[in-house]
Amino acid sequence: MKLSKLVGDRFKETPSDCVAASHALMLRGGYMKYVANGIYSSLPPLKRITKKIEEIIREEMDALEGQEVSFPVALPASLWEESGRYASVGSELLRFTDRNGAKMVLGMTHEEAAVQLVREYASTYSRYPFMIYQIQTKFRDEARPRAGLIRVREFTMKDAYSFHTSQEDLENYYARCLRAYQRIFARAGIPEVVCVASDSGMMGGNLSHEFMLLTPAGEDSIVLCLECGYSANMEAAECIYHTEEGSAGTGSAPSALLPVETPGVHTIEELADFLHIAPSSTCKAVVYQKNRDDSYVVLFLRGDLEVNEAKLTSFLGEDIHPAVITEESGLQAGFIGPVSLRGPEGTTVLFDRSLEGLSGLACGANREGWHMTGLDLKRDCPDAVYRDFAKASAGGICPVCGRRSLTISRGIEVGNIFQLGDKYTRSMHMQYVDEKGNSHTPIMGCYGIGVGRLAASVCEAKHDDYGPVWPISIAPWQVHLCCMRGDNAEVRAQADRLYEALQKAGVEVLYDDRNVSAGVMFSDADLLGVPVRLVASPRNRKEGCVELSLRGDRASTVKLPEETAVDSVLAKIRELAEALEAKVPERI
Amino acid sequence: MKLSKLVGDRFKETPSDCVAASHALMLRGGYMKYVANGIYSSLPPLKRITKKIEEIIREEMDALEGQEVSFPVALPASLWEESGRYASVGSELLRFTDRNGAKMVLGMTHEEAAVQLVREYASTYSRYPFMIYQIQTKFRDEARPRAGLIRVREFTMKDAYSFHTSQEDLENYYARCLRAYQRIFARAGIPEVVCVASDSGMMGGNLSHEFMLLTPAGEDSIVLCLECGYSANMEAAECIYHTEEGSAGTGSAPSALLPVETPGVHTIEELADFLHIAPSSTCKAVVYQKNRDDSYVVLFLRGDLEVNEAKLTSFLGEDIHPAVITEESGLQAGFIGPVSLRGPEGTTVLFDRSLEGLSGLACGANREGWHMTGLDLKRDCPDAVYRDFAKASAGGICPVCGRRSLTISRGIEVGNIFQLGDKYTRSMHMQYVDEKGNSHTPIMGCYGIGVGRLAASVCEAKHDDYGPVWPISIAPWQVHLCCMRGDNAEVRAQADRLYEALQKAGVEVLYDDRNVSAGVMFSDADLLGVPVRLVASPRNRKEGCVELSLRGDRASTVKLPEETAVDSVLAKIRELAEALEAKVPERI
Repeated sequence: MKLSKLVGDRFKETPSDCVAASHALMLRGGYMKYVANGIYSSLPPLKRITKKIEEIIREEMDALEGQEVSFPVALPASLWEESGRYASVGSELLRFTDRNGAKMVLGMTHEEAAVQLVREYASTYSRYPFMIYQIQTKFRDEARPRAGLIRVREFTMKDAYSFHTSQEDLENYYARCLRAYQRIFARAGIPEVVCVASDSGMMGGNLSHEFMLLTPAGEDSIVLCLECGYSANMEAAECIYHTEEGSAGTGSAPSALLPVETPGVHTIEELADFLHIAPSSTCKAVVYQKNRDDSYVVLFLRGDLEVNEAKLTSFLGEDIHPAVITEESGLQAGFIGPVSLRGPEGTTVLFDRSLEGLSGLACGANREGWHMTGLDLKRDCPDAVYRDFAKASAGGICPVCGRRSLTISRGIEVGNIFQLGDKYTRSMHMQYVDEKGNSHTPIMGCYGIGVGRLAASVCEAKHDDYGPVWPISIAPWQVHLCCMRGDNAEVRAQADRLYEALQKAGVEVLYDDRNVSAGVMFSDADLLGVPVRLVASPRNRKEGCVELSLRGDRASTVKLPEETAVDSVLAKIRELAEALEAKVPERI
Repeated sequence: MKLSKLVGDRFKETPSDCVAASHALMLRGGYMKYVANGIYSSLPPLKRITKKIEEIIREEMDALEGQEVSFPVALPASLWEESGRYASVGSELLRFTDRNGAKMVLGMTHEEAAVQLVREYASTYSRYPFMIYQIQTKFRDEARPRAGLIRVREFTMKDAYSFHTSQEDLENYYARCLRAYQRIFARAGIPEVVCVASDSGMMGGNLSHEFMLLTPAGEDSIVLCLECGYSANMEAAECIYHTEEGSAGTGSAPSALLPVETPGVHTIEELADFLHIAPSSTCKAVVYQKNRDDSYVVLFLRGDLEVNEAKLTSFLGEDIHPAVITEESGLQAGFIGPVSLRGPEGTTVLFDRSLEGLSGLACGANREGWHMTGLDLKRDCPDAVYRDFAKASAGGICPVCGRRSLTISRGIEVGNIFQLGDKYTRSMHMQYVDEKGNSHTPIMGCYGIGVGRLAASVCEAKHDDYGPVWPISIAPWQVHLCCMRGDNAEVRAQADRLYEALQKAGVEVLYDDRNVSAGVMFSDADLLGVPVRLVASPRNRKEGCVELSLRGDRASTVKLPEETAVDSVLAKIRELAEALEAKVPERI
């Protein structure tokens, strides 16, 4: 490919709305163009990258005996009604009506379509296990697309669905798939992706993992243990609390429950200041309403902690939103406490595990302008049941090794895998007959990777101030050949010869044949991020050489005699590929 | 791939709603599954076929210096408003509103997206010409999907867009693209596809061609000249009429225009019967209404001819529908004639070229129950202007060679190419600056192929009663290995060895390792249509042989010694590929 013919503009200025480096660099490098909120067209360099990523994914899926299929983008709503997701998924599911008035959706995942495809085929045990996958366009009507390709509305995703007759078989396959995912990320150049336990959310099922690239540009929070390597999505991380000896909360002498007038004190911070105690010596109330009927959910937890809404939603089994507390409700916003709480009928009252066994706490008095001190949970709330509803926090206790070694990092979710159980197969009446003629419901796993998001994640992980530094496995081209001073006929002839010879040797070359300044040529090359760079110039020409360097590594520059340049380039490409390959774990 | 693990069911009975062989065979062979009206999922055999077709298309596009990009499926309506198509395209364009109330469409072609992508890039002459293409899912909300993959609502299409600074450059590129299309169809195994001139319809522009596979399952009519090879889509075919000497219509003695009472005579057939004349001696009226304002369009043509609505729409520049003739209109349905016609204000009256110079015709008298005889167009309709509005008919005169040699065939449109001119670039304000600093509007060509429809077309052209006979270039596998009597350990071992050896040699093998009857095994193999078949059986085993045959050619059966079987298979695959290649025209 000659750069003079490459469709797409490159430019210097970072567009003002870019919060992520990959977003800015992929716009600046002519990889993609904005079309609408969260919707982009791909230009040739990005298309070449995503095709290579897709090929890596395909190889790993095929190695898992996956069979490639393709499901429709536009699906009849009836399929989603069968599974129950037509009602349960929010407005990120794009619903529309066709010209004949039939209700339809744009697929955001394809569990329903997968079950529909194999429901009759897989009606006997001998056909299990099997896995089908597709690489296809999906649409998710995100409220807040952000960061370029990291959170978009339209995206290409590989989604795979496996079907099994036993939990054991699913688990074995799931482990192989987890390994395949680690291989995919390593082959794409980011072996540092971590695999964390996650909350399954609307997908259903019980066990799932997310693959996270740790980077400040990420939008997810991940809890990591520096000691034992435990990792979990914030939404799934279990919390363990250890109350320090001698802290206010464990006061040895029981104190009486006493009202205190606290005019104008509404928040935990104000209360702690007013009483000169630590926030951890208070009992905080956080109030939600259920989406279904607006009934109240009052959750008490230790004043220094935050609510993990995913855990709360998962426990309740339904969606909630922050409460609007009305006068009629009887709840006293800012003064809610666990003793003599009078909420409207149907109010759910919950206690976080952080409060269990504590005494000597301050809490609301359920009376405008008043709090209580001396709360003793065991004595004053004898019926309370304690559960895990709080967010893990930095410096917290690791639920695995028990040490106070938790850290919180930001990350991009580049893939996820789920053990779905029978959520879809049961609701959609998929059954198989076993050896003895008895009917059973099969169970499923599902496995997703966003292709564009993976490309952007590699860019986040591998870039410098001047542009991406693409790993050789997914780089849009392997070699970027610069012809400096193309108006010099000898240099031009040398560069033309190299271009020919490299192409003949099967190398993917981008040839900058333009008559532009060295500054423009190198800044464009930096933006295109091709790993191996060859420079033909008058000075090199005089020495019968060309210069080879690696993108992002000035120290790597070497002069090559023209005659052996192609061989040296091939060796360098092999070397880069082998260095990547060395970090790819074995298949299991 | 082992057939025992291949996802998808094969079955014997033709589903009742199948009008096309490809539809029935692709359902029966486990190639695809119905999801909703005009929407299918692809199973692994079809996915393998379409991937090979896509690869052929990609190679041919790349050889035309095409650069692969990707446009969004979901597009903002504003882009389609810029081009004017948001208003002009009917309900086949799926329009919807996203969660934020923004109007959007699902792309059915991507001219707007192509212009949006390169509008800034291509602002100077030096960047021309160039071509971008994608292979992407599209949605067209067809009123009547039919014939399986031949007319669907969701489909994968390769669409390419070229940009030029002169008509000459466009025409040169267009010719190369036309040749590339011929190569694609020949490489996919149907070199018999014909290229016909077509009407550009809603795409705009002036010159276009359709690539037609002639088959009774087609839904388009094509006009072909048996003498000179002229071909055109029915919608575009020019009509030439030669009025036979001595026929009623050219009566030498002028006859007077006389009213005739014709009670209960409404149609041309009834009128011809009543007057004992040929339908070609009558002047027929066909009435439409404009969609825009319901005003009437009355078209007169010779009684034996049919209206070509595409020509009429194209002349009017707006859409029409068959008229509902009300009493208030003043039009006398069944009795409309060109003399003293009184339609409501705004009625358009048109005359087809077939009437020019005729006399002695019968026509309506614009009076309930009456017709006229002796109509002389020159005398009675002196102001008439004659244009081409009629459909070509079998036995008609070829507009090129002038012989009475036209035939009408049915065909499937497997591809189309258009010279778009500046329809999109002008409306979307795309401009470039020439060498002298002057601004111009570039012109475009566009080039489409439906991938699934091409697969179905090959199946229409290449099948027998038992299943498809896939060309080696796009067959889901190259070799189908049958292990007859797999309960015989020696046969099984032989088949296993062959499977291994063929895979090692890089052959795509489907291995039927099931313990099923010869009948089931062979009918499944016929449905899967793999070109080369190998059979291991107890009898062959005893002779140290396997049997090779070609799908659909029993006479081709030969016995091969096991030791040389792999080499023979490789030779047979090469032979099949070379036979295909021999029919592929050279690139230009």
